[in-house]
Amino acid sequence: MSSAIKAEQITFHEGTVTRAERERLLKQKGCTLWFTGLSGSGKSTLAVAVEQVLIQRGHAAYVLDGDNVRFGLNAGPKILMETRGYSEASAKRFGLGFSADDREENIRRIGEVARLFADAGLVALTSFISPYRKDRDAARAIHEKNKGGAIPFIEVHMNTPIEVCEQRDPKGLYKQARAAVAQGKGMGFTGVDDPYEPPVKPELTIDTGPTSTAEAVAILLRFLQQRGIIA
Amino acid sequence: MSSAIKAEQITFHEGTVTRAERERLLKQKGCTLWFTGLSGSGKSTLAVAVEQVLIQRGHAAYVLDGDNVRFGLNAGPKILMETRGYSEASAKRFGLGFSADDREENIRRIGEVARLFADAGLVALTSFISPYRKDRDAARAIHEKNKGGAIPFIEVHMNTPIEVCEQRDPKGLYKQARAAVAQGKGMGFTGVDDPYEPPVKPELTIDTGPTSTAEAVAILLRFLQQRGIIA
Repeated sequence: MSSAIKAEQITFHEGTVTRAERERLLKQKGCTLWFTGLSGSGKSTLAVAVEQVLIQRGHAAYVLDGDNVRFGLNAGPKILMETRGYSEASAKRFGLGFSADDREENIRRIGEVARLFADAGLVALTSFISPYRKDRDAARAIHEKNKGGAIPFIEVHMNTPIEVCEQRDPKGLYKQARAAVAQGKGMGFTGVDDPYEPPVKPELTIDTGPTSTAEAVAILLRFLQQRGIIA
Repeated sequence: MSSAIKAEQITFHEGTVTRAERERLLKQKGCTLWFTGLSGSGKSTLAVAVEQVLIQRGHAAYVLDGDNVRFGLNAGPKILMETRGYSEASAKRFGLGFSADDREENIRRIGEVARLFADAGLVALTSFISPYRKDRDAARAIHEKNKGGAIPFIEVHMNTPIEVCEQRDPKGLYKQARAAVAQGKGMGFTGVDDPYEPPVKPELTIDTGPTSTAEAVAILLRFLQQRGIIA
């Protein structure tokens, strides 16, 4: 441990840290890489690979995905009642399910948290189907209108064809959805009985059918270099 | 710009980045410094000063406070309708006001976001009155039970006496609250007509009456050193 810090060594200025101060320290610019695409299109695989390679190269990065968001910030009513002691009314009100409104609020909160991470100077990576154009555009808008200055929002469309995604079907969800539809019971599964609205003008488009993960990572890192986000 | 990154240079392992990998890169451990205390007790002044000094010293840190949370992640119904195009029903459901339930949900979301920042390896600093013990204990619990391993949760009780806080009254809120109470109209203001429940066993207690900001920053930094969070 270094010697004890004394009050006389402490200097600071009024107000909050500027974006420029953060970016100088971290030797990178904050941004959000917003991965969007069908289940099985390779969003999470690519997001965690990019995060790893950025970290290997000395950059600060963090993936937001179902694993760390759906059981915490955007938990459903059941989790809020069981782990937080929420009343049934409160859990129903704030807990998120899978209705259209709930999905919109899910993506809204994720957009806000990504913006906070990017404002802190990190490369935030979000990995959610985020099928609706309006919700993604709203996430973009809060980045571009960020109070401390616009934050780059990089929409990455994983346009792996549905046939490829469905063949992979890592969680067996397509199979479930097709079976449900065959029995006349919809489950609102994107690409099967709920629409996926492709981005009109994404910053990047990647098809992980022909493109390997290593190639896709290289494409993304080159893009971040070109934008001056990393050196 | 360095030369273009090629796919052949990209190596990564299966799965997500480990906490140890992040901490090695950032040369610090992630943690949450949870400031709690009355309005005017010095929470925000101290939080932004600690953030600045950490950043000067090459550490990654970020303050969550009313400025970056109340108009975004935890916005009220009006903002959700006006800036996000939420329906009235959706805005009322998800937007946060100042009822007991809304305050609980406000602190819950902040606790979840702080946990994500700390999991990303940052020193997260939260600056909210957070008057209820139960809500703070819940924030602590999600840190201690974090899936990727327990995250240090450092509760900093700003126990500046209410007389001092009220004399400072930077936003004129005590004056407003006293006037409202005198007219028989409560406004549920902490310390005036709503209780503040002091922490039973906070990691640190600071009274910014006698303690200068520089002294308080030094106390906090020494604590982080002792805990092995920073070198």
